[in-house]
Amino acid sequence: MATEGNRLDPWVDTYASRAKVMTASEIRSLFAVASRPEVVSLAGGMPFVSALSHEIMGDTFARVIKEKGNVALQYGSGQGEVGLREQITEVVALTKVQTHPDDVVITAGSQMAIDLIVRVFCNPNDVVFVESPSYVGALGVFRAYECDVVHVASDELGLNPTALDEAIKTAVKLGKTPKLIYTIPTFQNPSGLTQDDKRRKEILEVAKKHNLLIVEDDPYNLLAFDGMVPRAIRADDADNVVYLGSFSKTIAPGMRVGWAVAPHGIREKLVLASESAMLCPSNLVQLAISDYLKNQPWLEQVKVFRELYLERRDALLDSMKIHFPAGTTWTEPLGGFYSWVTLPEGFDATSMLPRAVSALVAYVPGTGFYTDRQGSRNLRLSFCYPTPERIKEGVRRLGEVIRQEIDLRNTFGVTGNLSAQSGDLTAPDVI
Amino acid sequence: MATEGNRLDPWVDTYASRAKVMTASEIRSLFAVASRPEVVSLAGGMPFVSALSHEIMGDTFARVIKEKGNVALQYGSGQGEVGLREQITEVVALTKVQTHPDDVVITAGSQMAIDLIVRVFCNPNDVVFVESPSYVGALGVFRAYECDVVHVASDELGLNPTALDEAIKTAVKLGKTPKLIYTIPTFQNPSGLTQDDKRRKEILEVAKKHNLLIVEDDPYNLLAFDGMVPRAIRADDADNVVYLGSFSKTIAPGMRVGWAVAPHGIREKLVLASESAMLCPSNLVQLAISDYLKNQPWLEQVKVFRELYLERRDALLDSMKIHFPAGTTWTEPLGGFYSWVTLPEGFDATSMLPRAVSALVAYVPGTGFYTDRQGSRNLRLSFCYPTPERIKEGVRRLGEVIRQEIDLRNTFGVTGNLSAQSGDLTAPDVI
Repeated sequence: MATEGNRLDPWVDTYASRAKVMTASEIRSLFAVASRPEVVSLAGGMPFVSALSHEIMGDTFARVIKEKGNVALQYGSGQGEVGLREQITEVVALTKVQTHPDDVVITAGSQMAIDLIVRVFCNPNDVVFVESPSYVGALGVFRAYECDVVHVASDELGLNPTALDEAIKTAVKLGKTPKLIYTIPTFQNPSGLTQDDKRRKEILEVAKKHNLLIVEDDPYNLLAFDGMVPRAIRADDADNVVYLGSFSKTIAPGMRVGWAVAPHGIREKLVLASESAMLCPSNLVQLAISDYLKNQPWLEQVKVFRELYLERRDALLDSMKIHFPAGTTWTEPLGGFYSWVTLPEGFDATSMLPRAVSALVAYVPGTGFYTDRQGSRNLRLSFCYPTPERIKEGVRRLGEVIRQEIDLRNTFGVTGNLSAQSGDLTAPDVI
Repeated sequence: MATEGNRLDPWVDTYASRAKVMTASEIRSLFAVASRPEVVSLAGGMPFVSALSHEIMGDTFARVIKEKGNVALQYGSGQGEVGLREQITEVVALTKVQTHPDDVVITAGSQMAIDLIVRVFCNPNDVVFVESPSYVGALGVFRAYECDVVHVASDELGLNPTALDEAIKTAVKLGKTPKLIYTIPTFQNPSGLTQDDKRRKEILEVAKKHNLLIVEDDPYNLLAFDGMVPRAIRADDADNVVYLGSFSKTIAPGMRVGWAVAPHGIREKLVLASESAMLCPSNLVQLAISDYLKNQPWLEQVKVFRELYLERRDALLDSMKIHFPAGTTWTEPLGGFYSWVTLPEGFDATSMLPRAVSALVAYVPGTGFYTDRQGSRNLRLSFCYPTPERIKEGVRRLGEVIRQEIDLRNTFGVTGNLSAQSGDLTAPDVI
């Protein structure tokens, strides 16, 4: 049970209305338990940073501090270091996004970019349209700013443009104010699905028709298992799309460096919002990333990650085929970190979680990726962090738990006893 | 003239109401010019990071990445790394604050801590009580969340408790909701003033009487020229004070690491807000700071900073005595970075700024430190960054400008033509 605040907290009546949605759930406590080493965690979306050369990265930081310490250790620009912004224009060009360093805003991870965009655009009750399911960290931000979130029906190509068009019309009819379309078109978190080129164009047309801004969140684009980089929606429209990227999956999340590519007027607002939020991103980390991009074969390193994740994806899919009972289905991602599993009719992935953790395997229940209690039959499995052997063992354990659940249901029937709300799960060990 | 948005920006009608206060001013453009090397800038509050050993810091980062890369490069805890939180309890103990690592929240600089506190506590139009003048970065946050800011009359010991009590009563009478008291008790930015122990106790009593939370922002406490550390307000009350600190002035701002020490319930809300804002602070930078605090004589390094700033403070005060015309007064800070100057009756420090920049010296006009257009006769001079020689030359030039201004006024009369609003100046080169 999530509560609005602890009655022992004397400030409980003093918080802002937006803080009322900030609650920790039992699910979070459960994840604390799930971080024990004997548990195979298929929950967290942690990149496998061991595959990055710590030697090279350590030397890079040392060199930057010794050679450029007076800049690296000082306050910097609110918009971010101009040299790195130039390099980011080259990184996003891989997805065919053409932009200028002036229109890049560097943030403390792309999570912060989402926060700043919502801060700049959304009044309470403004409507944000998202996929079904959608990224838990973004849903947490929308809730924190008291937005209305509408989950648009999705299909095997992700966000469905016809359903999007209908959802926008419905919101307008209800007298609401549509504000943003938030989408992860490539290897979506949590579904693992990817929009094809035609789908992207259709979504863009719907957005333009309704004069709505698209927030295109694209952290996984270089992690396609076939090595091809999907064309970003932003590549076809510089005016109606804010494009978000990150070095968390291509270098390392410990850097906390992401970015937004934004139309000029929006970019200006984002910089002012960022200065208010944190003055400036870390010069030190920015200069180190800039040095790394310039002096290291960083795309070769991304290839190393990609091949490693492909092997793990295969381990996941193969073992699900072996160990999951009939009636369980899942997506087959072509890149990224996640597969989205649907349990047989009547299952509750949230109430099953304590039993899974007892069986030493963890996942994220599907309801966390919705604001409207959908997803109870779903769970997200991440294949990025554990080794293929651990993944196979984890899936074996999970298959066992599902089978036991079927037995239990056949014998007694089972009711859920935990609840997960989106926003509860915006924790670094869950994303 | 600040505008709400550029009419060329097609999204101008789409922004949230809070974004309407996010505007860039002419003052900001002027500071871009003022960053040329021939200009002596007494404007920015940039610590003199050249005095820190770049060798030691570079080696620290290299060692942390090579020895603990799998943690340093990964996502971390939303609350911050527990080892560093333990060390922070020892750092704040220097100001007699007794706390537990559980009640420390690590943020991306203490600017973010201010942002998170206001996010958690303030609805639009809630009242925040601040000093006259107050820190421009905090004022920017209060404006960004649409708070009402009340500048409480201050005297030579800073925030005046009788005036604070009156201001709170007045707000209540007007039907408003008082929410926070924001104060920098030690070497305040921008006034340079320090509350003595008696004053601190009086302010705490007023806060408790009205059941109001104090936000005690304390980044300069280890920079007292006599080496003594003032006792924090939080040392006398763990329940009614959120205490903010930072490594920006004791180590380096390029780290972007600050913290809040908060009562338990508030701490929980701050962690959830921080996760929503940026998932987690950088593990890498936190582990590096932790290593530095453990293995280096960091308090000796703070002493180096302190002695260097004392020499610069003396250069500032001595040269103001020589070069500033009669009728100009200033504060004599006992630590920190700033002196607050009051120009003769009828002067306008904002409209004088372009002439100062032409004469190759820059400062921050006083109106930026108020939300209510006070401070037109004031300016803030920073002595932290330029060498004593440059400070003397800057003050000589500024004295010249003031004298010319007197001549101009005597001949023609002068009117202001620029405006600075708080929040316009929440830029990293101004703080």
